[in-house]
Amino acid sequence: MIGLEAVARRLELEGLYTDYVHCLDADELERWPDFFTEDCFYRVTSAENYEAGMPLGLIHATSRNMLKDRVSALREANIYEPQRYRHLVSSLKLLDDQGETLDLKANFLVVRTMQEGDMTLFAAGHYLDQVRREAGTWKFARKTVILDSRQIDTLLAIPI
Amino acid sequence: MIGLEAVARRLELEGLYTDYVHCLDADELERWPDFFTEDCFYRVTSAENYEAGMPLGLIHATSRNMLKDRVSALREANIYEPQRYRHLVSSLKLLDDQGETLDLKANFLVVRTMQEGDMTLFAAGHYLDQVRREAGTWKFARKTVILDSRQIDTLLAIPI
Amino acid sequence: MIGLEAVARRLELEGLYTDYVHCLDADELERWPDFFTEDCFYRVTSAENYEAGMPLGLIHATSRNMLKDRVSALREANIYEPQRYRHLVSSLKLLDDQGETLDLKANFLVVRTMQEGDMTLFAAGHYLDQVRREAGTWKFARKTVILDSRQIDTLLAIPI
Repeated sequence: MIGLEAVARRLELEGLYTDYVHCLDADELERWPDFFTEDCFYRVTSAENYEAGMPLGLIHATSRNMLKDRVSALREANIYEPQRYRHLVSSLKLLDDQGETLDLKANFLVVRTMQEGDMTLFAAGHYLDQVRREAGTWKFARKTVILDSRQIDTLLAIPI
Repeated sequence: MIGLEAVARRLELEGLYTDYVHCLDADELERWPDFFTEDCFYRVTSAENYEAGMPLGLIHATSRNMLKDRVSALREANIYEPQRYRHLVSSLKLLDDQGETLDLKANFLVVRTMQEGDMTLFAAGHYLDQVRREAGTWKFARKTVILDSRQIDTLLAIPI
Repeated sequence: MIGLEAVARRLELEGLYTDYVHCLDADELERWPDFFTEDCFYRVTSAENYEAGMPLGLIHATSRNMLKDRVSALREANIYEPQRYRHLVSSLKLLDDQGETLDLKANFLVVRTMQEGDMTLFAAGHYLDQVRREAGTWKFARKTVILDSRQIDTLLAIPI
């Protein structure tokens, strides 16, 4: 039977994804890099490219600083985008357990609502992540966002 | 590390949201007010209005009795609406813990299916709630339903 | 208060649904029958038919072998369907507890993404399931997939 420690860790991991999506949905992108380790790897790609082993993607970053740059670019582009995004996360699964480093998988759906009320399915897919324990919390050391679709309908790729 | 008591409470809170949405999705609206305290505050509003500090909304109630009246009005209006609603809830977060009173946040998505099979994204947004311990169970003392869209496509605003 | 054993079981049950949808979303249908007992009952039906007590459905199977036949038929039909499916599961509820046999309910949403990127709400509804403890794991002894819509847009009904 699973012990209390494993249960507690499970809740911590669910909490990580919860905080992550609330950060994005509240458009608090400046806090978004804090969910990652300094040497993180972050990629948004399509399932098709992922399965074909194609290395690049819509977004590709190999450090937390690159994520910060990404946010700056998004803010400076200052594209008038009055939409809101809402993430639904489901079916979080622990794939591999190396103690302080864990591999995880989860499904996600992102719904976009335009200011006039039009709602669309913006993105669906799954996360393939590696989290690492740092200073008492879990951070994403690797996050691969694998979209079911080939591309997403946006001018400038946003974090997912 | 989180203790067993906190884990148990977490499951209770998840259970509250689970029961709440199953009640709505089964169209058992007569049971809906029972999820609230007698002096509850319930509001459905848009993110735009919420952020602007606008007090009113699509639905606004300041007691459980007002919720009961709402259900009666919905039943008496007897609008032939053969649709079904399905709630998905995700990313429940404890915002503030005062023991017997807790502040919570969660994302939701509501899908509407018309009798002929047409499915639409009906509502997406987040709950900002306060729950209170009463007679061994958690009740909503405050529930603010914040829609990502300005309005929802319905003749008579229904509970979300 | 809920004990550690009940918490552990809760996580096991969530894990069952998690593994189930990842199997389907990864199109690993050959593993799908393994989630069921040998004498299982599996049905996909509409809410309308379910409520009217109509026995049949889009898919109807009374053993694990019939599920295997179903998968073979799907593979042999070899319909060129370049779409991907993504399941979101929410609000898992324990309805009845008989120790080694449990009745459960959960909401689901399935999003379909076509190769060209077009995304649609494929199915929404709820599961009404019975799980049974077998050789240290939980298996579906009964799974009733109740769609909010009358039918689903597909040439050959797929597992949900």
